[in-house]
Amino acid sequence: MKKLSVVAFGGNALLRGDEEGTYEEQLKNVIDTCENIVHLIKAGNNLVIGHGNGPQVGNVMLQHEAGAKVFGIVPQPMHLCVSETQGSIAYLIEQQLRNVLLKHGIERNIISIITQVVVDKNDDAFKNLTKPVGPFYTVEESKELEIDKNWVFQKDPRDRGWRRVVASPKPMEINNWQIVEKLANDGNIVITVGGGGIPVIQNADGSFEGVDAVIDKDLASATLAKLIKADEFFILTDVPKVYINYHKANQKALSRISISEAQKYMDEGHFAAGSMAPKVKACMMFVENGGIEAVITEASQLKDENCGTRICK
Amino acid sequence: MKKLSVVAFGGNALLRGDEEGTYEEQLKNVIDTCENIVHLIKAGNNLVIGHGNGPQVGNVMLQHEAGAKVFGIVPQPMHLCVSETQGSIAYLIEQQLRNVLLKHGIERNIISIITQVVVDKNDDAFKNLTKPVGPFYTVEESKELEIDKNWVFQKDPRDRGWRRVVASPKPMEINNWQIVEKLANDGNIVITVGGGGIPVIQNADGSFEGVDAVIDKDLASATLAKLIKADEFFILTDVPKVYINYHKANQKALSRISISEAQKYMDEGHFAAGSMAPKVKACMMFVENGGIEAVITEASQLKDENCGTRICK
Repeated sequence: MKKLSVVAFGGNALLRGDEEGTYEEQLKNVIDTCENIVHLIKAGNNLVIGHGNGPQVGNVMLQHEAGAKVFGIVPQPMHLCVSETQGSIAYLIEQQLRNVLLKHGIERNIISIITQVVVDKNDDAFKNLTKPVGPFYTVEESKELEIDKNWVFQKDPRDRGWRRVVASPKPMEINNWQIVEKLANDGNIVITVGGGGIPVIQNADGSFEGVDAVIDKDLASATLAKLIKADEFFILTDVPKVYINYHKANQKALSRISISEAQKYMDEGHFAAGSMAPKVKACMMFVENGGIEAVITEASQLKDENCGTRICK
Repeated sequence: MKKLSVVAFGGNALLRGDEEGTYEEQLKNVIDTCENIVHLIKAGNNLVIGHGNGPQVGNVMLQHEAGAKVFGIVPQPMHLCVSETQGSIAYLIEQQLRNVLLKHGIERNIISIITQVVVDKNDDAFKNLTKPVGPFYTVEESKELEIDKNWVFQKDPRDRGWRRVVASPKPMEINNWQIVEKLANDGNIVITVGGGGIPVIQNADGSFEGVDAVIDKDLASATLAKLIKADEFFILTDVPKVYINYHKANQKALSRISISEAQKYMDEGHFAAGSMAPKVKACMMFVENGGIEAVITEASQLKDENCGTRICK
């Protein structure tokens, strides 16, 4: 059987903060990303693609808000906005990866799956909301929404207004991972778990319902990688390697580290919370659970098969 | 092997014109639809679900428009809006069907696929644009957009302004139908070809690109049903049966008709263009290509296994 790889990249690989966000720009960005990912496919790997949706779901939530103001269209909950971004981002990746493979003369099928991810409704994250989402509101608007929708608000540290905060719970179960595993091992490239998955909780009667939350996309992809017994897990980000003493005079790039070294550097505070720390943690979780190697790097480095920082047993 | 059924229903089964369109209303509507569809599953059939997206994609296009006005978010093309609705509608159906099956003690897996559908860029439909989409514009706005975006406009017959019109081309190839066939015959309920599919054309170099168009959802589902060699094809609509002399004193419900009878009634003008005629045509196409039976009925009739108008060889 071929090597099975899972690769996760951010929603900002498609919709960049330094651009207007036109369709043409997004197309160019997704093609660039696919051209980089082709190196993994050329290496003969089977492949599952996970992706983020930060900028996209932000836009969709604002569009819902604006649609209500301008046209009176009832805005939908955040978890439904996540499902919208799963549709659009997977569509763009699937279409352009198909074109890129064609250009490279590679025959591989690609399929995109809408993915719900079960979180625990008793997860501590629901008691300590940390993820700011959606538009900025005035204090009056935020008070009204607190009552109307039971939302929780925090004042923006940069004083741009009040912003809703939601939980970032741990992914417990990835729906349909067995099918993803089968499809990927049959040679299909599978696009799934977009934006970390649509967060759902399971009620006492067994039924599922959507919740407004943000599941860390790297942790969701790492969890999927573990479940489908992937060999390799890649997190694509905006630096070629992980560093210790980052941005200091004695900054040092890490090439290959063990889980215990990673843990040591983590304990020493080398990895920023909400940035590199969760990525390293996702990689450690993957390797602790049987993965051979987890790699953190920049997409453009994938042409070098020893690229990035590699975390091993 | 079990009987394989394909069922197609309209986006208005979820988002109804006579309601506000809240998430709670949509949930209730999707549960009602799933409770009706359960009768097909209880009968032991394997099942593929296609669905429309008319009201949903209309809203998403308005939300994009409003997001540009209020927040300066660049609106995306219609085909990307279609992909957003595939995500959200499939999510709602998958989640609530899972809950309904649980309630009925039925163990079946459900999976949702983002589906591109290839249309012919030389389809005559691109020369004769007939489908009004998106918001109403003033004549000045429409003139500007004609130049800016190369859109075509028509004056609204009810005088609400100018509206963009797009093509309604024939579906030629449903991406990933082979996987849908396999998954469905393995017992998974597959949700696919939402809104008739995301319309894409293939360029001379073999590459694919999205186009703004509306693929008839019944014809797309019938095409899929043909490709996956389904036994039965159901179109769920707002009448229990098809009628001749509809809304006249001599109105008569049809229970079982052959393709040639269907063609005769069609030629006599019994079926309204843009309403019952395309549904009957989709059914005829399915049966002409090897399908055993196509059924047009209301979802609430499915509990009766002889429900609706049945079109056979």
